[in-house]
Formats: sequence, structure tokens, C-alpha cells
Amino acid sequence: MTMNPSFSPGVLSVLPLFYVGWSDSVLSPSEIQLIHEKLKSLEFLSDEDKAYLIKYTDPKNPPSKEVFQSWIRMLRKASKELNQKEKSSLTKIGLTMAKSSISHKPESLFESPKTQAAIEELENALGVEGVGSLQLLLNAVEDPENESPNLSFDSNQLCDFLDGDQKEIRDRIRQLLRDPFFKYEYIADKEKYREKTLHQLKALAEQGLGAYAFPTEFGGKNDVRGSIAVFEGLAYNDNSLTIKYGVQMGLFGGAVNALGTQKHQEKYVDDLAHARLLGCFAMTETNHGSNVKGLQTTATYNPADKTITINTPTENDSKEYIGNALHSEMAAVFAQLYVGEDCHGVHCILVRLRDKKGQLQDGIRVKDNGYKMGLNGVDNGKIWFDNVVVPVGNLLNRYGNITEQGTYESPIPNPNKRFFTMLGALVAGRVSVGLAGVSCAKTALTIAIRYALKRKQFNGNNPQDEVLIMDYPTHQKRLMPLLAKTYAYHFALNALADRYANAQEEDIRKIETDAAGLKAMASWHCTKTIQECREACGGKGYLAENRFTNLKGDSDIFTTFEGDNTVLLQLVAKGALTEFRQSFHNDGALAVLRFLGERVSNTIAEFNPVTTRNTSYDHLTDRDFHREAFRYRYRKLLLSVSSRMNDYLKKKISPFDAFSKCQEHMLELAKAYTDRYVLFEFRTAIEKCEDPSLKAILNKVCDLFALSVIEEEKGWFLENDFMEGSKTKAIRRVVSKICKELRPELRGLIDAFGIPEEVIGAPIAMR
Amino acid sequence: MTMNPSFSPGVLSVLPLFYVGWSDSVLSPSEIQLIHEKLKSLEFLSDEDKAYLIKYTDPKNPPSKEVFQSWIRMLRKASKELNQKEKSSLTKIGLTMAKSSISHKPESLFESPKTQAAIEELENALGVEGVGSLQLLLNAVEDPENESPNLSFDSNQLCDFLDGDQKEIRDRIRQLLRDPFFKYEYIADKEKYREKTLHQLKALAEQGLGAYAFPTEFGGKNDVRGSIAVFEGLAYNDNSLTIKYGVQMGLFGGAVNALGTQKHQEKYVDDLAHARLLGCFAMTETNHGSNVKGLQTTATYNPADKTITINTPTENDSKEYIGNALHSEMAAVFAQLYVGEDCHGVHCILVRLRDKKGQLQDGIRVKDNGYKMGLNGVDNGKIWFDNVVVPVGNLLNRYGNITEQGTYESPIPNPNKRFFTMLGALVAGRVSVGLAGVSCAKTALTIAIRYALKRKQFNGNNPQDEVLIMDYPTHQKRLMPLLAKTYAYHFALNALADRYANAQEEDIRKIETDAAGLKAMASWHCTKTIQECREACGGKGYLAENRFTNLKGDSDIFTTFEGDNTVLLQLVAKGALTEFRQSFHNDGALAVLRFLGERVSNTIAEFNPVTTRNTSYDHLTDRDFHREAFRYRYRKLLLSVSSRMNDYLKKKISPFDAFSKCQEHMLELAKAYTDRYVLFEFRTAIEKCEDPSLKAILNKVCDLFALSVIEEEKGWFLENDFMEGSKTKAIRRVVSKICKELRPELRGLIDAFGIPEEVIGAPIAMR
Repeated sequence: MTMNPSFSPGVLSVLPLFYVGWSDSVLSPSEIQLIHEKLKSLEFLSDEDKAYLIKYTDPKNPPSKEVFQSWIRMLRKASKELNQKEKSSLTKIGLTMAKSSISHKPESLFESPKTQAAIEELENALGVEGVGSLQLLLNAVEDPENESPNLSFDSNQLCDFLDGDQKEIRDRIRQLLRDPFFKYEYIADKEKYREKTLHQLKALAEQGLGAYAFPTEFGGKNDVRGSIAVFEGLAYNDNSLTIKYGVQMGLFGGAVNALGTQKHQEKYVDDLAHARLLGCFAMTETNHGSNVKGLQTTATYNPADKTITINTPTENDSKEYIGNALHSEMAAVFAQLYVGEDCHGVHCILVRLRDKKGQLQDGIRVKDNGYKMGLNGVDNGKIWFDNVVVPVGNLLNRYGNITEQGTYESPIPNPNKRFFTMLGALVAGRVSVGLAGVSCAKTALTIAIRYALKRKQFNGNNPQDEVLIMDYPTHQKRLMPLLAKTYAYHFALNALADRYANAQEEDIRKIETDAAGLKAMASWHCTKTIQECREACGGKGYLAENRFTNLKGDSDIFTTFEGDNTVLLQLVAKGALTEFRQSFHNDGALAVLRFLGERVSNTIAEFNPVTTRNTSYDHLTDRDFHREAFRYRYRKLLLSVSSRMNDYLKKKISPFDAFSKCQEHMLELAKAYTDRYVLFEFRTAIEKCEDPSLKAILNKVCDLFALSVIEEEKGWFLENDFMEGSKTKAIRRVVSKICKELRPELRGLIDAFGIPEEVIGAPIAMR
Repeated sequence: MTMNPSFSPGVLSVLPLFYVGWSDSVLSPSEIQLIHEKLKSLEFLSDEDKAYLIKYTDPKNPPSKEVFQSWIRMLRKASKELNQKEKSSLTKIGLTMAKSSISHKPESLFESPKTQAAIEELENALGVEGVGSLQLLLNAVEDPENESPNLSFDSNQLCDFLDGDQKEIRDRIRQLLRDPFFKYEYIADKEKYREKTLHQLKALAEQGLGAYAFPTEFGGKNDVRGSIAVFEGLAYNDNSLTIKYGVQMGLFGGAVNALGTQKHQEKYVDDLAHARLLGCFAMTETNHGSNVKGLQTTATYNPADKTITINTPTENDSKEYIGNALHSEMAAVFAQLYVGEDCHGVHCILVRLRDKKGQLQDGIRVKDNGYKMGLNGVDNGKIWFDNVVVPVGNLLNRYGNITEQGTYESPIPNPNKRFFTMLGALVAGRVSVGLAGVSCAKTALTIAIRYALKRKQFNGNNPQDEVLIMDYPTHQKRLMPLLAKTYAYHFALNALADRYANAQEEDIRKIETDAAGLKAMASWHCTKTIQECREACGGKGYLAENRFTNLKGDSDIFTTFEGDNTVLLQLVAKGALTEFRQSFHNDGALAVLRFLGERVSNTIAEFNPVTTRNTSYDHLTDRDFHREAFRYRYRKLLLSVSSRMNDYLKKKISPFDAFSKCQEHMLELAKAYTDRYVLFEFRTAIEKCEDPSLKAILNKVCDLFALSVIEEEKGWFLENDFMEGSKTKAIRRVVSKICKELRPELRGLIDAFGIPEEVIGAPIAMR
């Protein structure tokens, strides 16, 4: 074997001592004195060696990071080639290294017992003797994580860029979650877990973290954007807390604040934001989850005493999965509002469930939903109302009011529009859940990639040297496109949160569509990513201590709550179709011509063999190509669904049946719509980045995102003649190539998520 | 509204009573007498009505299934159109139905109070009064599951066909699992759960269910095939028990029986098969899971006293995830065997962990692996050996022995071949885990499909009438291809189990390849299916009571244990490549020519526009087309991987690097290999089916399987010019069409799995 020529045999012989000395010990001046004397007396060291070594015994002048890394690289390289016996002491390692570095001359100074004794004396002088320091050395040299990552960018800077405007809040949450009080632990017993989660919720609220979203005049901070960032930040840690926080502040608090009027805000907001008043959001019923319009619970106005009676008609119409049901004092109950003969559709009414002591009120029945796949720190339950009477003032009456005269009035006369306006006020939930999914994916990837940067399996070309699993191409292909997508959803959802926080009324409809699509796609991405990460960590991934158990179980329901993903994507497609028709309607014939014109240019592209067959790396990583592919897919699906729908309707098929027949097609459209949005927002974010090194790395991640999506959808692109087989094959190769290019940057890309060590938690991910 | 004309108004008026009477009550002769008298006195009944009704009060002549179903259909139809008030009693339902059926005449006999009183008297006489029977009626009419499924086949017959030769054992397991002792329940606390699982294991063993695989002369039944069927059957229920059973009987028992010799069998088999001796299988180490050859534990022969010293070299080399580690008396420990100077590779040695009282032996350290994502009824742990000395006789010495003279000898001189022979003796584990995955998928599909056949969501064309979720095309597309694949894997894995049970030595290598592929594909299928089923059940699917929590958590590790799926598929691809080369080697030039000839015919197919564009239903459901597509994909991938490998090797790239470069490509090859095998075995099984109705339904399921795989892989097929876009689009339509065709057969297809109601367990799946 040949050694690194930049170290002389003499230096090599004592390098292990110096490395450990600098890693592990603080040297006193008298020890340093002793070391200098020893060094001078070692006859196998050249003067140059001595000068080099003495230089690095000065505590005021420690080796630079680069020098230290060069020692590590040397030691790591040597360590791989040493047998067990040669590794039994620091002195032996040094001597073996020294001997190996001398290519000629069979007998050497470094084999004499005298030399060995001299180095051992030095070892004592340095105070690094013993098994502990040996272990330290071996760990370090066997742990490539300590290797300088040679990143092309500064991961702290990237972290700042990801944090954006919300950096202060995000840092505040990070700091808070570092506190042992919030430390992740697996708690099997749901009662204990719920107790703990409740305490944590109260602690968060006491810190003022519940108040972000609410108006300042009622004790809040008037910072909706901040409240979303809080939720996103909590989701790195224990999601029972995240969800309980979301139920209390976002759903219950959101209902009171957005659906109620000033009197409700004055009465409740300060208390609920500080968790002095616990509440729940009683919307979903056992048989009505996605179909909120079909809720069965009734709220009947009684003109005689100006009250409202809340009633659950049959056993099966109970509210279900209601978070906070077992701890709440109050519920925001969604029910069909009857005034006189008329039903005015779903409205929200505050109903007291328990008194201040926690005693259930008459007519209220609550049943624990029991253990769940995850989120067992959240107390979900069923609630029945047996003709419970509340004052009419409990009606959250911003969008529908009962007057003093006992008549119903609303600023939005159209019941359908009213219904969607009420639900629209709660769209923050979808943005937040999407972001929580991204946070879970980030945590999972951080754990799996850190593990893959340590864990070795199977021998490579050198039989002594097992290969890091992160260096296997299949492992890269499993994890890295998921990492790229996680970046993409991060930017897209944060952009959406910004838009939401600054929205005017006329923007809300579009934001709802985008939020529905992103929540669906991001939550599926989360489920898929955690699953892949779990499997990528093998048996270790299966142990609860390594976090996937809870990450997976907790986030699994993200695909269902705040709207079932499949149902949401139907909404997205309907939104896209409506917008498409309106654009014709508003702009008239010109718009049609324009659209058709664009279509024609696509049609040309379809049959342009130069484009469909272009397999050059430059073309495939050209952002115009990506944009064009995403746009083409969206537009072509939009046109084809639209014309199918038109055909059905012309044939007098009912809209319900027509939508039914197009369901799958609409799912595809909704995915294409959302993918296009995500790519757009990712690119827009990169545009804003001023640092060239960050811009470069983000562009590469974005390329990987875009090409991964195209690769997944290659069947569609080929089917629709947008590309030929030679091109999709080339894309597969480019995806693998980009993975390889990004491989040395991986550590930085996960560090940039800024998840505190204490929050990552998993032993397999520890440095 | 108009009513079914086959019932007169008179019959309709009392039909609810009759329906509930026959559903709910046993009538005594005197009650019947009373009913007859009442019926005769009802003046609004015609003589025909009376005759019809009297006929159906004879307990010896109950209404036929068809008649009963016609009543249900009538009641269901009516019930949908009634308001809450009209449903408040059986009499009111009947009267409303009767009145509605009279299209003219505003005032009717059925509105008189006298009529109402008369029917109410009859209601009393029938003994069906009260809320209970009303609820029964409403449930029944609102539960379409009671509808005659109009199956084209007999689901019991199909169940028999699926059970095949193993029917007796399967029925035995079903019967056993019906016992409340085995009832599924969610147990959060791992200690309690482990206790319960241990008791259940002992109960199984006492029933003789542990002994199937072992030779009769040592207390077994010599029925390896039966032992696999037991495992498969247990996997419908609680998989902590399945896996603990598998560890004890299959792994520990399998090691003693297959790697040991007669003395070991005589000494241990009877006791372990009856769970009097609990053992574990200590192979995996923290840093060596897939790479068994690299195990670090040492077993050093001491010639002086003819003992072996078992040692764990460092803290990180402990055995890990060892099932039964906390309950076992004994461990089958895999370690590097040193005799004299030589290491002979991995061998298995029995080591006592605890005495009969459960006290740990000196030098043994065991640490609980703690909570896991699932299987918390299984006691997994880490084990360290600190120079533990055992007699040389504890070496399981079938394939490697230490003689009286202290020298090593083996019937298989090649260490590599010896290693694989030892592991090969344990291939049953992979077949079994694959089958357990299929059982879990069956349970999940049974629950999700039953739920989708009851659960309604959103209004259809009739505003009163929400639509069954199973009738949504997206829901069909989500679940039905997974159902078809589950059938496919059932047949393929059972065929493999048959082959394994009857294998000669020369078959084993091929069986290993097939088992590796099937275990990987079936376990991924299981994970995917349970996830989809959970989501398809929305919030209900998230509750632990509905089983997905455990099904998912327990089976998640199936993708990792008995070999990580990604690693296994590499083995499959290597096996396929080896076979491919050998076929040339054995048969010489002729084989090459033959293969190339076949290749040429494929090449022709590629460019034959008639085939690549044929979109007819007949062609797309033609089994020759499916076979050709699966074969083409496999062969083309085999050729392309093989030639890439050759190119690399010619360029002197090391085999390790060459394999590394082809890893992804090899995964594709392995999937194609396995898919082709699955299709082949599915078709082979159908060939053997003699009943035409079963054959027809299975062919349809197989079509759905084959086309679903082709649809998933359409990107590849298009890329490789096997089909044009028009054809892959047509395949998508045909897949949807077959789903629709199979929709009325769904109930029968899941009933045929024969999972007992008690085992299904989930409240949402109950009839």
C-alpha cells in the first residue's frame, strides 16, 4: 500500500496521538513543555517533522479545519487497510502507517522496540492513553460523517433561504423544541400520551404561540402567516402536539374568529389562544366526512326563548374523530340551521360540552375513538347532542344571522356561495397540513440519509471495505428524487401560505383550488417518503426509537383529514375546468384563438422529431424544456377532459354521471395542474435567490424534481407523442447522473432543513 | 313515486311486518293461528293478498331466498323515498308504501285510522313491535350488502379452489382462530401483548400445529407444505402470533432440523415443536443484516476440552432484532467458525441463553429492542456473547463438522457453495413471508371492499340517494387491480410452496430465485394494498379497531426481513443472468440461435403496426397477448442487462462496479422475471379448474391482473416500441371496463378468501 506523500513517516508515526490529543484533551502548559522535550528527543523524527509537530502543540494555534481534515483523511485511509492487531493501540497504528509509507528498505527505524517505547512515552505525555481515546480515533476514522463534506454551498445560508421571511418564528420554534420538555418519546399508553400532549399544548399557548393568527385587539398578533410557520415548525417533532395545537388554534379558534363576529372574538379569542378555554371543531359525522353539505345534525331556532336546539337525529349521525373531544369545554358544532320552516344549510354554533370542572353537560354524550394508527396523544372522540339548548348568540353569525325578530339574514344570499365562503375561511388548514407533511418528509429524509452516510453493507472491490449504502445507485434513486420533491413542495406551499396571508376576497377561490391540490399531493408525498425512508433503514427503521413509527402513523391521516385526497383532486379539476371556461367567457373569441394557437404550437412540438428525440444533457436540464413538458401535460389534459365533458353533456348525460365517467381523467388533470404549480413556484423562489452557489444547487435540485416527475409520467408523455422512447430513456440516465452529482451535497441539503439534533432524535441519525 | 307492480297495495301495507317477522322472530303455532285470524279480518286485503301472506306464515315453508330478496328490494326502494316521520313505525312504512303504490284516487282505504289500527294489531300479533325491529328493518333496507349478490359463481366453491390440497389444514386454522382465545385486539402495552402472544403460541403448539414440518420419527408430521399453510392461515389474524410462531418453528426449529443432525433432532425437535423448549434464531447483527457472510460473531474451537467459544467482538456486533430473544431458553447462533488457524465461514451453533427458570446464563447479555412499528407482541432483542463456552456437540453439523480429532470436515468442500446450501435450507421462510403478505392483503381488501359496499358519500342524480363509494370509478380503480394481484400472488406463492415441498436438490437454486422475487414483490404489494385500503376507508380506516393499524404496522417489516427486498431482487436478477448464460453454455450454439430467433420474432412484433396498434377488446383480453407482453419485457431486459454487463467486463471494470452500474436495470429485470412467473402460475392454476363458472371469473381476474401490470409498465412498453399510445390508452379503458364488469362479483371474490367473521373483526366490515 502507498500512503499519502504529504506526510513523512515520522509524522505518520505520531499522527494518531496528535489527532486524539487535539480531539479529546486540553493540554496544560507543563504538559506542552513535556511534549516538546519528548519530541526533540525522538531520533526518528527529522527536523522538519519536529517543527511541524511542535507547531501543533500550541493551544493558541490549533490546526486549521483543513489541516485537521487532512489528518482524518489520512487516518481513515490507513485504518481501512489495517488489521485488528495493528489497530490495538495508537502507537501501533502510527508505526504501521509509518512503515507502510516507506516503499523500499526492508528494515526500518520504525520496527525497533526503542522507537515503539519512545512513542509510547509520548503517548503518556499527551495524556491520550487508553482504550477510550483509541475508540475515539477508530470511531472517527470509521465515521465518514466527520469528513469535510466539500459542499459547493453553505448549508446555513441555504437554511436561511428556506426559512425566508419566517426565519425568526422558525428559529423560535427550533429553540423551543430543543427543550427537553418537548423531547420526542414513544408513549404506548394513550391516556399518558394525551396528558403529556395537553401539558405541552398549554406550554406552547403560554409562550404566546397560539395567538399568532388572531387580531391584535383580541389578544392576538394578527399574523396568519406566522401561525402557519408555527404549525410547520412543530411538525418536525411530535405530531400529536402539532395536531392538537392545530385543532385548538386553527380549527376551533379559526371557527370562532372567522365565522363569529366581534362579540365572539371579544369573549373567547384571548382565552382560547392561551388554552384557558379548550375547544373542538365538531364538523365531521360518522356518515358525512367529505360531504359536509349532507351533515345530519340539526340546529333549530326556537323563537319563543331565542335559543337554538342542537340535535343528533340518530345514533349513526354522531360527530366523529373530533380532536380534543375529551378535553374540550366547548365545541364549534356544524349543523343544518332551521329557522321556521326553512333550512338554511350548514352553520356553526358554539355549544358548551363541559363545565369548568370538566363535567359533561346534560344532553351531551362523548365516546373515545380509542387507539388509532397514530396521533395517540390526540383525544379524538364521537359526540352526540340530545336536544341541547344554547342561546341564539352562540350562532357564529358572520355569514348567517338570526335577527332580533327571529328571521334569518345573510350577507351572502346564495346558499351555495355562503356554504363555500364559510368553508373557505378555513382554507389555512389545508395549507398547514400540506406543510406539516413536508416537515415530516424532511425529518424522515434527514434520518434516512444520515444513516445511509454511515451505514455500510457488502464488500466492494476492496474486500476489507464495505460500501456506504448511500453510494449504491438504487439507494440514491430511492431517496434523492424524494428529497428534490420535498424541496419543491417546501417552496410551493410556503408561497401558497404567503398568498393566503395576503389574499383579497377575489383571490380566495383560486387559493382554495391550489391548496386542495397541494395538500393532496404533499400528503401523499409524505406517506410515500416516510415509507421509502423506513425501508431504506431496514430493521433499524422499524424500531420506534428511530422515529418512523410515529412519523408514519401520525402523518398517515394527512391524506384523509382536511379533505380526502381523491375528493380534493376532483375539486381541483373542477376548479381548473371552471377557470378554463371562464377564460373563454371573459375574453371571448380572442382567448379561444390564443389557446388554440398555443395548442397548435404544442401540436407542432409533438411532431417535431428534433424536440421529441433530443436527448442531450443540456436540453434535458433546460428549464424551458421542463416548463414546456409540465405545461403541455396540463393543457392537453384540460382540453381532453373538457371536451369529454362537453360530449357527455350534449348527449344529455347528467352532470353527476358525466363527472363520474371522467373521474380518473380528472385526477390526472388535477395532478398535472398541481405539478405545474409546484414547478412554477420552485423556479420563482430560485429566481429570488441572490447567492450564486445557492442558486446553482437549488437549480440542480429543481432539475431533479422536474425530471423525476417527467420520468414517473413518462407513460403519459410517450402515449401523447410528446417524447420518443430514446428521450425518456435518456431522462432516466440524466436522473441517475444528477443523483450522483448531488451525492456529495447530500449532507448539506439535509442540514439546510435546520432540524435541531434534539428533534431528529433517532439514534441511527446521531453524529 | 311508483312502486314495484308485483306487490299489491294490501301486501305492501304489511310487508314490513312480514319481513321483520321472518328476519327476527320464531313464531309459535298459537301465534300463527292468531295471525291467520287477523289476516282474514283485514278488509283492505284481497283474497289473493291473504293467500299470499298466509302462505308465508308457515314455518315449514319459509319464503325462498328469491322471495325474501324481492321483499328487501321493495323495502329498500321505498325506504329511500320516505321521510323520517314516515319511517317512525313498521305500520307507517307499510301504509305509506301502500298509498304510494296507488297512482290515482286521492282518498284511500289506507288512510283510515281503522286500517292503521288493524295493522298495528297484526304488528302485535307478529311480536315484531318496538324500536329494535324497526331498526333491524331500516338497517337491512339501508344495507345493500343483504342484496342478493347475483354472483356468476359460487363463492364457497371458489374458496375450495383457492384452498386446494391444503383445505383441511386451512379449515382447521379457520376453526381455531374463531375461538375467542385468538380474538384480535389492540394491545398498547408491549409486555401484556407479549404475554398474550406467548400463551397463544403455546396453545397452537399444544394443538400440534408446530410439528407439521418435522420428521415423524422426531414427533413431527413430515409435512412441510402443511406447515406453510399453517403460517399463511395464521396471518389473517394477529401477526405477532404468526411471526412468533414462525421464529420458533420455522427459524429456530428449521435451523435445528435442517442444519443439525440426528442427535440434535432427537434431542430437541419434539420439545421445540410443542413449545416446551423456546428458541430463537440469532443470525442478523446490528451491522450485518443482508450481508450474512460478513457476520462478526466468532465461534472458536478449543481442542483442549472439545468446546466452542462464542464471542461478540465489539459492542456494535451484537445480534439484533432477534425474535423470541426475551423468552428463549436457547439460541441458534450464526458465527464465523474458527478451527485452528482457519476460518471456515458462517456456521450455526446452539447456545443456551437461559436456564429452565428463565435465568440468563453467564456471559449472555440481552437487551429489549423496545417498541416497534408493529409486531409488538413479539419480543425482539439484541444479544451479546462474552466468550460463552458450549460443547462441540452444539455445532449444528450437517454441512460442517469438527471431528473427534479436532479437524474440520464438510460434505461440501467449496465454502461459498456450503454457505448458500445452509441458507438454502431456510428458503421456506421467504415463501412463508410472501404468503403472509398475501393473507394481510386479503384481510385488508375484505375490510375495505365490505365497507365500500355499505358506505355512501355524496348525492347522485337522485338528491335523496347518496352513492355507494364502491360505485365510483376511482374507487374501483384503487381497489380492484389490487384484488386481482392478490389473487395472482396467491396462486403463484402456493404453487411455489408446492414446488418447494416436493423439491429435489437440483431444483433448490431455481426455487430460491423465485422465492426471493416473490417475497419481494408480494411484500411490497401487501404494503401498498393495506395503505390503499386504509385510505379508502377514510377516518374509519385510521381507528385501531378497524385493523389497518396492526395489519400495516405488523406487515411493514415484511419488506425487510428474510432479506431486504432491494437486495433480494438483485439476487433474482443475478440468478436470471446466470441461468441465461448457462443455457448457452449447456446447449451451445443452438441455444443462441434459438434465443436470437425468438428475439427476431419479437423484433418483428415491435414493428408490426397491426399488433402494436391493435386496440380491440378481444385482442387486449387475449391471454396470448398478455403472455407475449410479459415475456417480451423479461427477455428484452435480460438481453440488455446481459450485454451491458458484458461491455463493462470487457472494459475491465470490476464485477462489483459493473453490477453497481446496472443495479436499477437489474431491479427492472427482476420485477419482469417475477411478473412473468406470477402470470404463468395464475394461468396454470386456472387451467386446472374444471368448473366453467369459476374458470370464467378467474380468467377475468387474471385479465385484470395482466392488464394492470401492463398499464403500470406502459412507459417501458412504449419506450421499447412494443405498443403505441393508442393501444396503451385502450388498455386503460379496458381495465376500467373489467373493473365495472367485476363490480357485481366483488362480494363473492372477497368471500372466497374464507376469512372467518371473527377474524375479520373490524366493525366497519361487519354485515
